[in-house]
Amino acid sequence: MSDLVKVAVDAMGGDNAPEAPVKGAVDALNESESLYIYLTGVKEIVEKELSKYTYPKERLEVVAASEVIETAEPPVAAIRAKKDSSIVVGQTMVRKQQADAFVSSGSTGAVLVGGQVIVGRIKGVERAPLAPLIPTARGMSLLIDCGANVDARPSHLVQFAKMGSIYMENVVGIRKPKVAIVNIGAEEEKGNALVKETFPLLKACENIHFVGSIEARDIPAGDADVIVCEAFVGNVILKLYEGVGATLISEIKKSMLSSLRSKLGAMLVKPALKTTLKRFNASDHGGAPLLGLKGLVVKTHGSASALEIKNGIFQCLQFKEQNIADKIKEHIAM
Amino acid sequence: MSDLVKVAVDAMGGDNAPEAPVKGAVDALNESESLYIYLTGVKEIVEKELSKYTYPKERLEVVAASEVIETAEPPVAAIRAKKDSSIVVGQTMVRKQQADAFVSSGSTGAVLVGGQVIVGRIKGVERAPLAPLIPTARGMSLLIDCGANVDARPSHLVQFAKMGSIYMENVVGIRKPKVAIVNIGAEEEKGNALVKETFPLLKACENIHFVGSIEARDIPAGDADVIVCEAFVGNVILKLYEGVGATLISEIKKSMLSSLRSKLGAMLVKPALKTTLKRFNASDHGGAPLLGLKGLVVKTHGSASALEIKNGIFQCLQFKEQNIADKIKEHIAM
Repeated sequence: MSDLVKVAVDAMGGDNAPEAPVKGAVDALNESESLYIYLTGVKEIVEKELSKYTYPKERLEVVAASEVIETAEPPVAAIRAKKDSSIVVGQTMVRKQQADAFVSSGSTGAVLVGGQVIVGRIKGVERAPLAPLIPTARGMSLLIDCGANVDARPSHLVQFAKMGSIYMENVVGIRKPKVAIVNIGAEEEKGNALVKETFPLLKACENIHFVGSIEARDIPAGDADVIVCEAFVGNVILKLYEGVGATLISEIKKSMLSSLRSKLGAMLVKPALKTTLKRFNASDHGGAPLLGLKGLVVKTHGSASALEIKNGIFQCLQFKEQNIADKIKEHIAM
Repeated sequence: MSDLVKVAVDAMGGDNAPEAPVKGAVDALNESESLYIYLTGVKEIVEKELSKYTYPKERLEVVAASEVIETAEPPVAAIRAKKDSSIVVGQTMVRKQQADAFVSSGSTGAVLVGGQVIVGRIKGVERAPLAPLIPTARGMSLLIDCGANVDARPSHLVQFAKMGSIYMENVVGIRKPKVAIVNIGAEEEKGNALVKETFPLLKACENIHFVGSIEARDIPAGDADVIVCEAFVGNVILKLYEGVGATLISEIKKSMLSSLRSKLGAMLVKPALKTTLKRFNASDHGGAPLLGLKGLVVKTHGSASALEIKNGIFQCLQFKEQNIADKIKEHIAM
């Protein structure tokens, strides 16, 4: 077991719990022999769900957690009060190095707060950013930071650039990932106070491949691999991405059902269209890592499917096997 | 002539000048008898273009401006140096009340700077925001501010909310427009320092219909009519809107051409699809007003068509006939 990558999975978090996390965990175990999984949650519920599946029982353990943190609960209070919740129990296992990583579709706020106060940051890391992968015309880009800590300082953004580069290079496999800072124009003198202060620091940073500013318009085209921004802006980008996509797709669908002619056409284009829209669906990609912590924490969507959770678990595998935490420690200390 | 609404139009600005602005102006004149138009630009070029059309010659005048400000020029320097440019000449006419409004597809930076330093702000207005209308599932929302003055203060955002409400009510015709502030969560305690400080001020503001926070995800659905934000965030929203839309549409088109079956289907859905995508194309809606100035300045897209410019001119007509500047003066002074 010592060679296995140990991932704690929140069996109670998200809209589709316990079904999706349990199935995601079982599927991951059946696909990879390098995994050991802890499912944290209410024992009877999790075991009942598990009984539906066949899986290597010697590599799965249910860890009892009697409480559940709801999405609507204020995160800091919830993490403090519910010591026996699936999130606190799972993150405590990471802090104690009983698990290498933790995957949860539960309350984003609670997972973020728990990441900071339970798992804890790597020494030298000033902030642990939430960095989802977003779909682009060329593949995927890492949007860093979309977390809850807004009003960042320039030094935070520089660390985000470094951590994001390490992640994209080692976990996603992009060689020399292009780093850009979100700005309102391409010229160096443009931007708000934060961007203007950060720009020269990124330019001077030796161990990243900084390509300058990126306007929001060019993000979906995939012009940069690591997109650095302050969390308020990142949150707006992430959510607008989903919002514009969802509205546009729903309007297109409506228009296709507006006449007999277009209904017929819709039947014919459906398979091709489905492939494209699927690629643009952020939720298939395994969730967002919370970087800079002593172990990996992956936040999957509240509506995550078993597939997303399985992919989130595989992110943890890659993260551990590539020693990302050590690489971050080295580079941030530099 | 004294009853006519006088609009100066930049005949040299934008990718399609002089063709698009000249045609836009001519079309507007032919459609409305309440308009008088000044075309600012290089006399011979504008007159040659005008010679192609039939229009009420007694309501159009070419105003000579020998210089052109290019998009790439630093705005402040350009406005200072090129006193005889189509932008400076047109905006000076507004300042001198020779024209009620100015429409330009030229350099956004120069139009914004000129608006502040040439036309000048209404007394009491702290900042003149650029406020484009963006398409939503329910119609249009006003996104205010998307201009060049970033790092706003709470008092600026409150003024944006007031001016945006007046515009949506009187120019666009939305009764009691819903005002929301862009935020990273719906709860009042969420947000960055600026949003947290602004929220209670908006809540206490009597002459607007404040509905609270809006997450970027809900903007495309049309959940609010006036969307208040600081200019950096506004700029990101505006450009990402265009970017996600463009990328998604191009990917959908590609997917539809991927097989014979889908090609056939594409032919059938094309008319319905075109209507939907057209509605989601921001560029048909006549550009973005720069509010809070002593006259109206409308910035149309750099790639504006004659139709967009015509619609921009009609915005000016509505703006003048509804006495928006006076209404802003009253409300801001309150």
